Amino acid sequence: MKIRCKKSDLAKGVSIVSKAVPTKTTMPILECILIDATTNIIKLTANDMELGIETVIEGAIEQKGMIALDARIFSDIVRKLPDNDIMIECDDNQQTLITCEKAKFNISGKSGEDFSYLPYIEREEPIIVSQFTLKEVIRQTIFSIADNDSNKLMTGELFEINGDVMKVVSLDGHRISIRNIELKSSYDPRKVVVPGKTLIEVSKILSGEADSEVSLYFTNNHIVFEFDSTVVVSRLIEGEYFRIDQMLSNDYETKVRINKKELLNCIDRATLLVKEGDKKPIIINILDEVMELKIKSQLGTMDEEIMISKEGKDLLIGFNPKFLIDALRVIEDEEVDLYFMNAKAPCFIKDEKESYIYLILPVNFSGAV
Amino acid sequence: MKIRCKKSDLAKGVSIVSKAVPTKTTMPILECILIDATTNIIKLTANDMELGIETVIEGAIEQKGMIALDARIFSDIVRKLPDNDIMIECDDNQQTLITCEKAKFNISGKSGEDFSYLPYIEREEPIIVSQFTLKEVIRQTIFSIADNDSNKLMTGELFEINGDVMKVVSLDGHRISIRNIELKSSYDPRKVVVPGKTLIEVSKILSGEADSEVSLYFTNNHIVFEFDSTVVVSRLIEGEYFRIDQMLSNDYETKVRINKKELLNCIDRATLLVKEGDKKPIIINILDEVMELKIKSQLGTMDEEIMISKEGKDLLIGFNPKFLIDALRVIEDEEVDLYFMNAKAPCFIKDEKESYIYLILPVNFSGAV
Repeated sequence: MKIRCKKSDLAKGVSIVSKAVPTKTTMPILECILIDATTNIIKLTANDMELGIETVIEGAIEQKGMIALDARIFSDIVRKLPDNDIMIECDDNQQTLITCEKAKFNISGKSGEDFSYLPYIEREEPIIVSQFTLKEVIRQTIFSIADNDSNKLMTGELFEINGDVMKVVSLDGHRISIRNIELKSSYDPRKVVVPGKTLIEVSKILSGEADSEVSLYFTNNHIVFEFDSTVVVSRLIEGEYFRIDQMLSNDYETKVRINKKELLNCIDRATLLVKEGDKKPIIINILDEVMELKIKSQLGTMDEEIMISKEGKDLLIGFNPKFLIDALRVIEDEEVDLYFMNAKAPCFIKDEKESYIYLILPVNFSGAV
Repeated sequence: MKIRCKKSDLAKGVSIVSKAVPTKTTMPILECILIDATTNIIKLTANDMELGIETVIEGAIEQKGMIALDARIFSDIVRKLPDNDIMIECDDNQQTLITCEKAKFNISGKSGEDFSYLPYIEREEPIIVSQFTLKEVIRQTIFSIADNDSNKLMTGELFEINGDVMKVVSLDGHRISIRNIELKSSYDPRKVVVPGKTLIEVSKILSGEADSEVSLYFTNNHIVFEFDSTVVVSRLIEGEYFRIDQMLSNDYETKVRINKKELLNCIDRATLLVKEGDKKPIIINILDEVMELKIKSQLGTMDEEIMISKEGKDLLIGFNPKFLIDALRVIEDEEVDLYFMNAKAPCFIKDEKESYIYLILPVNFSGAV
């Protein structure tokens, strides 16, 4: 194989596919990036067997072939080479020469034959969303997946299509994040659970531009993201996702409208009295026109008052401050509405048309006041 | 005590003195910042017994007094408060109330009486340098102090005044860094060894502005840095510094003039084949008009050629690439001159008027080529 391409193109492609290179694996071939120039395009691929990414880069093929190169070394070399044409050339023993200007690197590769290609997926009827929307919706929900594997389904997110609405849901047993996205067209209903890791890596690659699109293909076992010159294929998480509709409710006894930034800054300040791992709740006392927030730990106490407009009953309720912060951080609205039933029922933060719903369970705070 | 000051002033002051708060200590009082408002100024102090910093901040004293507050919690609180007036008020039991707008923090302080004040230093005949110069000279030499304590003197830097020249030297047994700074006035000769830690912290506080000055006072046991509203007092390292003059030489068999950036980038690239802790040398082959650089490790090999102008003999010599990188990074010149005697003698990188001299010992590379 002998190819030539621009450093910037190669560096971008390597950075994209590197997201699918596992950090730990017992199969050394998975730590490689495959350069496939067997046809008339140059394709880079990485694949950790759950998540696979391939991307096509521009360049000239002087001799067809393929080679698998250690992802870490190869990407380090590409990143540090001068900003000029890079030539990659390998012999029958997979000895690979990487040349740029007067710099020559010689490293050992592995046979491309040993590499696991991405599974072939029949791609029919894509869901189209903008890169911006997909990147945003991941950011706005990913924080409430569970990070341990005790319940596999909680480590992923539900993507549910119904007509022209895509609903994205994550939950971890203490809270639920829901975003409803309006699509430009209407689609047949479908429903998959996508691994959180896949979404985190995909959102790193997405440009986030509003006028670039992503095509999503759902199959029984896989989801495919197709955008720019890149294809991401991921396994789905098997099983029936949680029935969240029965956890949602429109009833409330107390409704509070509050300035989002004031609330967020106040809770953020309060948490500096809470050491990592310590589970001190923030106590919220809702009165007419004012919300009192208190936190108390070995380090000291904090009190603060925020002006609100309120409907319904007074309420004293406690929360894990991190859960409130996570939700408030990803809401763009200047003012938010909080709905409460009582001190033991979940709080809902949602807008009127329910483009977002954040459900957060309260915590017991007997003795914490 | 009851004081009021602007959040920005307080945050800046706290950030400055925090540099002298030890990360680990068996004396809890040292983890505190002392707020001293016993006179008509507000002074913040921190002191780890080696290094002490005090700074005066603007503000109003409504009731005189002093209090010692845990540095970490106090600085977190100040940083996260709104950008407005902050009131600090403490009672006779050292309970301290910090108020800003509607936020109220209540934390326990310690009696200011238990705090160790900075030693009183007679300040006579200061050396004046600009903040820019001092910050730069620290950056340009600090990398070659030794980081272990097997030889205490190597963990510090020599500051030597001779007439209108200040010489700053650091060495670690493998290399020496020397900078000669021209001063605006002439001073009596003096010579001290300043702990590296002090210099690192001082350089973080220095604004780096060319038209702000620092006054340096040297005594037998201490150095004092006075600038803006801040005073830094540090113990000196005792003992006679190494006689470096006898290690320097103006003789050479080979002189090379080379583009600094090309050389630096090339060595930087080469090091990506060297894993942390692995001691692979970079082999430099000096020929007429060209310098070849080679590195070889388990990961692969790199070769590169750089155009040079050369005087004297050809030479094959090996170096720890990190030592070359450290020196080249802090030299501003576009072209640098390298002086060699033979493959076992040190290399000198220096300019004509010797405003900088970097001495680097070569390494044995038998079998590395």
